[in-house]
Amino acid sequence: MNNMKKILAYISPENYSSLFDIIVAYDAGVDVVVPYCNIKVADMRDMIHSCVFTRHPDKLNNTAIFIGGHDIRLGEEMMKKAIETLNELPEFFRVSITVDSDGAYTTSCACVAKIKNSLGDLDGLNVTILAGTGPVGQRVAVLLSWENCNVTLTSRKMSRSEAVCGIIEKGYGVKITPMEVNSPETTEKAISESDIVVTTGPEGVQILPKEIWSKFQKIKIMADLNAVPPYGIEGVEANFDGKEIAGKKVFGALAIGGLKMKSHHKLVGELFTKKNRVFDLKQIYNLTLGLL
Amino acid sequence: MNNMKKILAYISPENYSSLFDIIVAYDAGVDVVVPYCNIKVADMRDMIHSCVFTRHPDKLNNTAIFIGGHDIRLGEEMMKKAIETLNELPEFFRVSITVDSDGAYTTSCACVAKIKNSLGDLDGLNVTILAGTGPVGQRVAVLLSWENCNVTLTSRKMSRSEAVCGIIEKGYGVKITPMEVNSPETTEKAISESDIVVTTGPEGVQILPKEIWSKFQKIKIMADLNAVPPYGIEGVEANFDGKEIAGKKVFGALAIGGLKMKSHHKLVGELFTKKNRVFDLKQIYNLTLGLL
Amino acid sequence: MNNMKKILAYISPENYSSLFDIIVAYDAGVDVVVPYCNIKVADMRDMIHSCVFTRHPDKLNNTAIFIGGHDIRLGEEMMKKAIETLNELPEFFRVSITVDSDGAYTTSCACVAKIKNSLGDLDGLNVTILAGTGPVGQRVAVLLSWENCNVTLTSRKMSRSEAVCGIIEKGYGVKITPMEVNSPETTEKAISESDIVVTTGPEGVQILPKEIWSKFQKIKIMADLNAVPPYGIEGVEANFDGKEIAGKKVFGALAIGGLKMKSHHKLVGELFTKKNRVFDLKQIYNLTLGLL
Repeated sequence: MNNMKKILAYISPENYSSLFDIIVAYDAGVDVVVPYCNIKVADMRDMIHSCVFTRHPDKLNNTAIFIGGHDIRLGEEMMKKAIETLNELPEFFRVSITVDSDGAYTTSCACVAKIKNSLGDLDGLNVTILAGTGPVGQRVAVLLSWENCNVTLTSRKMSRSEAVCGIIEKGYGVKITPMEVNSPETTEKAISESDIVVTTGPEGVQILPKEIWSKFQKIKIMADLNAVPPYGIEGVEANFDGKEIAGKKVFGALAIGGLKMKSHHKLVGELFTKKNRVFDLKQIYNLTLGLL
Repeated sequence: MNNMKKILAYISPENYSSLFDIIVAYDAGVDVVVPYCNIKVADMRDMIHSCVFTRHPDKLNNTAIFIGGHDIRLGEEMMKKAIETLNELPEFFRVSITVDSDGAYTTSCACVAKIKNSLGDLDGLNVTILAGTGPVGQRVAVLLSWENCNVTLTSRKMSRSEAVCGIIEKGYGVKITPMEVNSPETTEKAISESDIVVTTGPEGVQILPKEIWSKFQKIKIMADLNAVPPYGIEGVEANFDGKEIAGKKVFGALAIGGLKMKSHHKLVGELFTKKNRVFDLKQIYNLTLGLL
Repeated sequence: MNNMKKILAYISPENYSSLFDIIVAYDAGVDVVVPYCNIKVADMRDMIHSCVFTRHPDKLNNTAIFIGGHDIRLGEEMMKKAIETLNELPEFFRVSITVDSDGAYTTSCACVAKIKNSLGDLDGLNVTILAGTGPVGQRVAVLLSWENCNVTLTSRKMSRSEAVCGIIEKGYGVKITPMEVNSPETTEKAISESDIVVTTGPEGVQILPKEIWSKFQKIKIMADLNAVPPYGIEGVEANFDGKEIAGKKVFGALAIGGLKMKSHHKLVGELFTKKNRVFDLKQIYNLTLGLL
């Protein structure tokens, strides 16, 4: 039993499990990944029980659960159900668990860790997240709120922005300011008081032209998460990693992606260091900060 | 080829394969478990052919099949189809195979092995299996019949009990006496002549109060398979492992479960010691007895 | 990272992945096979991206893709889509890939390699493939065309034969002569001018009686791919491996199958020697020839 295999149950609600996540898990030192697809929230209780009643409680650090797939809402529900089920059990019967649907947890943590590492104390700074209604934008908003920033999250439609801010408040208990941005004028207005600007728009779409951002000296940091050219912020190449442009430090998608990969590897490794650890957004953020 | 991997095809008719069974297989020394789910009885022929025509016949002890999942009726049919297919092949082309749907084979074998180990010769003893119509109860009945006991199997409805006894006779060629038990009076009647009482009722339901069982000095052994309190037999804790109470030896669900786990591990290991072995209920029982 | 695992994504359009192919992959030295089933052509882009953006480009020789399953038309489409997607990427981001649906690629290559190895130059020889409309027959036709043979492919119905020759011409750009064969007379006519006769009919059906083939001295080689008796060519046992019968060299299905297995093993091994290799029919044929 000295050579007990490290087994990761990779659980996905999608039609097939992510080859990306499976490869990363092996590279992070897992001995066996058991991929599950088409798993429903209602299956999580059985899945947890299958994990925890199999090996001796002293050996449960060799079994862990990673919730993946694309659907981040389902991922959150599966995580919630899993934690509920684990919490019904004595502590010595609990395995470690995390969730990183669509890589949105590790990506948002990498983005904010870059910013935090660059500026230090973020207390009271103004943040604008342009096109921020997706999974990554939402989590960037939460993380920067936890750092005591005043966060504005924009969408092309006010109703969408408000809805997402409502979801964030319900899920994480933080207040984000919604804003409609769908023109050069509203874009300009959105970033006019910002210390930090993050763009989390779709691939291959420039959403912040240089003509606009260069007007505002107050902006200290700009970060973009679109890895497919044209990038989200004009002038910010994907591999820029804190480069200074016109007095601003800027981070491109590949630079953030590099830290995301390190965070992802580290996360999987940590699952097997101790049982009964829950890596939610906050824990993944702390772990990512520790990499810088 | 000295390091040829031990590969276990884990075949399940369910929507997803049992993580429990997969973890146990790895812990039992299997190098690779290939999990199959949603497999139909009609797929078994192809599955067997995929196993047997791949490696050199001299190396076929490195490939084996484990039929799992929850549905025990489907498990039996899949096993039957698999054996049929294997028997059409020359002996040197046959891999080893077993079935343990829902753990019911190893659990029932562990239960009866505890009893056999405790009493020795069981010839002619009277057995009552209360709430015995489930997969485990049925197999306990068969095993104790093979030990020449007179077995009565009860259900809350006579029709259900009779139906199950019919299924058992058809499947295993042994005669079990059906009985309706749904009140303190009928419970008392059911165990009044018993040497051995086994309870295989649902989790968290007490079906045999102390007030009743304590009336009967003839009872030598009581075994309960409900691991969730309240347990099936009042006064029999889940971890009691042959403890004497009021002159009776009693076994709780966790004590039986411990032997079940050993049997399950051993079973998987045995599949890879020699090719062409069929571990059905009788073989699993013999293997489990050998552990005591 | 010295011990980076060799990971093979085994991708199948079927309801379950081929245990045969998975076992062969492990025996060929792969560390981890990740089986995918129910994969659609439209999923291939995501699958490729999952492969190529995960590990460092210098390490991509440790990740490869094997398209399997039964449906050879879907297999071809999946391969085409995969290559398209790979070709959109810089070369250093490409993994190695192959397709061998139903084993038809390796089987046809083994068959033709046996013939080529036996006769040497095949330029200008006449070939008849009896019952050649299946996946193996089609690929035998292509390979022998590439060797500059004049190939005739027969079916019980002219329309079926013509349709298949059309498919072959469209897919591989070679011209095959269709022919209807459904009686002793048409069989005789079909092989009367042949140097080489290959039978790729269904299992357990004799399609070429000795009475017919023994009339033709011109035939130098006969090869049969039916492994279940009665075999496809009367007098040609499954294990005959170039044996001379009545002045003809003959190859049975097991002899060809033995080379197919070697080719299959070699193919999987080669996927991991270098990244960015595409093993299509031509490459698999060259690789198989190299084994003789």
